[in-house]
Amino acid sequence: MNITLAQLNYHIGNFEQNTKSIIEQISAAKAEGSDLVVFAELAVCGYPPRDFLEFEEFISLCEAAATQIAAECMGIACIIGLPVKNVQPAGKDLYNAAYFIEDGKVKAIVKKALLPNYDVFDEYRYFEPATEFDCIEYKGYRIALTICEDLWNINNNPLYISNPMDELILQQPDLMINIAASPFSYLHDEERRQVLSDNAARYKLPLLYVNQVGAQTELIFDGGSMAYDSQGQLLDEMPYFETASRTYRFDGKGFPDLKPVAHQPVSDIAQIHDALVIGIQDYFRKSGFSKAVLGLSGGIDSAIVCALACRALGPENVMAVLMPSKYSTDHSIKDALDLVENFGCMHQIIPIKEAADAFDLMLAPAFQGLPFNLTEENIQARTRGVVVMAMSNKFGYILLNTSNKSECAVGYGTLYGDMCGAIGVIGDVYKTQIFELARYINKDREFIPENTIVKPPSAELRPDQKDSDSLPDYDTLDAILYQFIELRKTSAAIIEQGYDAELVRKVIKMVNGAEFKRYQTPPILRVSPKAFGQGRRMPLVGKYLP
Amino acid sequence: MNITLAQLNYHIGNFEQNTKSIIEQISAAKAEGSDLVVFAELAVCGYPPRDFLEFEEFISLCEAAATQIAAECMGIACIIGLPVKNVQPAGKDLYNAAYFIEDGKVKAIVKKALLPNYDVFDEYRYFEPATEFDCIEYKGYRIALTICEDLWNINNNPLYISNPMDELILQQPDLMINIAASPFSYLHDEERRQVLSDNAARYKLPLLYVNQVGAQTELIFDGGSMAYDSQGQLLDEMPYFETASRTYRFDGKGFPDLKPVAHQPVSDIAQIHDALVIGIQDYFRKSGFSKAVLGLSGGIDSAIVCALACRALGPENVMAVLMPSKYSTDHSIKDALDLVENFGCMHQIIPIKEAADAFDLMLAPAFQGLPFNLTEENIQARTRGVVVMAMSNKFGYILLNTSNKSECAVGYGTLYGDMCGAIGVIGDVYKTQIFELARYINKDREFIPENTIVKPPSAELRPDQKDSDSLPDYDTLDAILYQFIELRKTSAAIIEQGYDAELVRKVIKMVNGAEFKRYQTPPILRVSPKAFGQGRRMPLVGKYLP
Repeated sequence: MNITLAQLNYHIGNFEQNTKSIIEQISAAKAEGSDLVVFAELAVCGYPPRDFLEFEEFISLCEAAATQIAAECMGIACIIGLPVKNVQPAGKDLYNAAYFIEDGKVKAIVKKALLPNYDVFDEYRYFEPATEFDCIEYKGYRIALTICEDLWNINNNPLYISNPMDELILQQPDLMINIAASPFSYLHDEERRQVLSDNAARYKLPLLYVNQVGAQTELIFDGGSMAYDSQGQLLDEMPYFETASRTYRFDGKGFPDLKPVAHQPVSDIAQIHDALVIGIQDYFRKSGFSKAVLGLSGGIDSAIVCALACRALGPENVMAVLMPSKYSTDHSIKDALDLVENFGCMHQIIPIKEAADAFDLMLAPAFQGLPFNLTEENIQARTRGVVVMAMSNKFGYILLNTSNKSECAVGYGTLYGDMCGAIGVIGDVYKTQIFELARYINKDREFIPENTIVKPPSAELRPDQKDSDSLPDYDTLDAILYQFIELRKTSAAIIEQGYDAELVRKVIKMVNGAEFKRYQTPPILRVSPKAFGQGRRMPLVGKYLP
Repeated sequence: MNITLAQLNYHIGNFEQNTKSIIEQISAAKAEGSDLVVFAELAVCGYPPRDFLEFEEFISLCEAAATQIAAECMGIACIIGLPVKNVQPAGKDLYNAAYFIEDGKVKAIVKKALLPNYDVFDEYRYFEPATEFDCIEYKGYRIALTICEDLWNINNNPLYISNPMDELILQQPDLMINIAASPFSYLHDEERRQVLSDNAARYKLPLLYVNQVGAQTELIFDGGSMAYDSQGQLLDEMPYFETASRTYRFDGKGFPDLKPVAHQPVSDIAQIHDALVIGIQDYFRKSGFSKAVLGLSGGIDSAIVCALACRALGPENVMAVLMPSKYSTDHSIKDALDLVENFGCMHQIIPIKEAADAFDLMLAPAFQGLPFNLTEENIQARTRGVVVMAMSNKFGYILLNTSNKSECAVGYGTLYGDMCGAIGVIGDVYKTQIFELARYINKDREFIPENTIVKPPSAELRPDQKDSDSLPDYDTLDAILYQFIELRKTSAAIIEQGYDAELVRKVIKMVNGAEFKRYQTPPILRVSPKAFGQGRRMPLVGKYLP
């Protein structure tokens, strides 16, 4: 039996396009003699559909798409993920399910039992957990089909209500297939390979794994579909961050044409780079836009975003706006212009002096000679915000936000100023990782001017300002932030590790004090296990300081 | 036995203050001879604590507060809601629970079974559902204590996994007590009274209900704790939108000192008014701020917000900023000044001409004579945004957002312009309700100038602009929006009711097209069953148009 894994890039709610690419894949697989094509979790509608699931019509459209797909499955079978109605009198309206379609008919429906409801996941908001588990029979083989999280209870974690594979194994399957919508984080791929390998070894069964690829707003799916033998050895690993399909011959015991291969390790930074590029690409493509605008300061953050945007959209589609003020240094303008030249993107220079002066004048009666402070710094940042948004509105460019995770965390940024944008490109990348990303982008050629990388970071909102005037050095700051945000440690636990107590408390206070700012920031491309946004839900007026 | 219902205003994570008000209440109840004081769901930490629950220390602080409270319960008992650890090997880490404390000791722990995970609720993210149900024995009586949603399965809805009262009734209790954190919507109170009455009648038991009161960022809790007799007749209704406590004598059968009373109906608009006032008040008090700033245009939306802010914070704490442009009409400035005079709040007049002209000048080279369009309208709105935020930054005033629900819905507003603010005061109030609210505020005196109410709504961003140039009349628009947002109807279903097909499709397309704007707006005080924000989770780059 030949099995094709189809690693496609779906678009939430775009039934026409999703159905078209699924059907094309089925035709291609049939042409090369495949017997079964396997698509990802909720492939028909894209993952995560969120509250679209609350519209009955949406579910009907999923069903209609499945009918259309089934009609193409003559002489071939396919597995596709979709939401299906719960026809039992009890429980929620829907299941997160998969159809097994053979010769135009739905022969089996497999439902998901372990519904993630943590971090970015809200599956219990919509779905009823499955309680019954049956293998699929096809061509004389028995397939244990599971959906994503249903394979993740490998250690019989008491957190989970069941372990579907422990039920399915009783029916003596010949093969495991897992279909997933598993979002990328730079720490997740290793864990995922371990879980898959452990499952194959534990149940002594070959295993095929299919993930979706591409970004759905902030969530990035990395693909990397895989085949394992029954000892848990990796046999094949499909590409990351691109669509692909591969066909394997299954002989009832395994995949005789494949031999164990080593996973080719890729650095965290390389993965983050590729994730952000596809994140930008898909945000634009799926929103129907092609051109981006960003404010380019000469600093490293906007340089990185400009570089990623040029790679994602082509430099001809990227407009960099330089907005010098009286506090901008000459080298900043030169560094920004060098970057523009290196990438060949569009640029405009729009000094902000007139507007900044006008605001000073307009506000003079109200401020009556009060001294320059954060207010005037914010006015500059917001003036730049007005300018880039005007460019966006006039020309239909989409504004890219250039805030990094370190500054998002501590609130070192101006709401409605540099925190503007339709999508936060590097809002889940700490400043220390930003430097690594710059080195990675420059690995073959100095795209980003060396001076941009080595000069002390500065917002340039007052004379001789440096980030280090207001923040601890980024190595220390990021280490504390990682402990607090990714690892959910309290100040007491972080201090115990040897960090300065006063500093730790100050940092955590800054993070909590910036919740109201982050509430209003754009969606942030998620590359870590704990990004700001949907996955981190903190009270705004809460008083607890961890 | 005397039972005191304590309807308090908690603050999430503010253990010191919550514990203090709980203990004060216990002392007062003891002084008046009460035997039992009942507090709300998650009273110890405030509801909803969200991801604070993921910090073990937070749970320990809840436990420590409970210990402190227990020490005060000598010669008296109390019921308090708090998260407690799940010590079983299986399931999630926590229960949403209540302690029954008597003579300094925790005598019983009651856990919640029905965990809401829809709309604004995420309880399944944190809590394990209870599966065992036991009554509490006290002073020779048996009490069936349930937590909020656990009483809501009155119709044995198959959506719910169980009906805790059906289990508890087998133990022949004498009294039902339900502790809740039930957020307000102008449609919710009637449903709540029905559910409570139905429960009392169905189980033939007297019922006491305790709700929390006050706002936690966007969620507003209305109080309105109640007593019912065993036929489901309302005996007493505590005040709405204010803290209160009452003590009832229970004789084993009911409350002999109480007689059935009629619910005093209050109009939806009066409820919304009171909810928004406490919403503003608590946002400021719990954030540690006292002064507000807002842009006052002379239009009805900002007039309403100014009125509510003056009532919530006192006019001496409200700064209205008038920011006329060349498109502002004379009557707008006069109407705004009349309002300021009527309320006696602070004001500043800061014309925006200089900055708007400066932006035109700065952008002229890039725009090279392109015609005036939405871009220049947005520049004016954003210039005003910069001005009010500068006032906010310089003086520590908190900016109130003045967008109404109709314009939030269709995206008739400028991101980073009039969509700025720390809290959206009327973002859950449709424009048609805004007019009613104005009449309600003016019921005794013309606070809001009549001209502000009767003139055709206009953003005044170009000559002779009217909302009706871009939008259908508000009666029609709001009716369509209500069908789509509150009732989750598709365009097909709305058209079927007789609305113009093209118009319905256009409106729904505008709503979907504005998701990216709403993602970045401030939290919105929730007064309807479906507000924008946490309770409505739509994909941003999704393609489905319901």
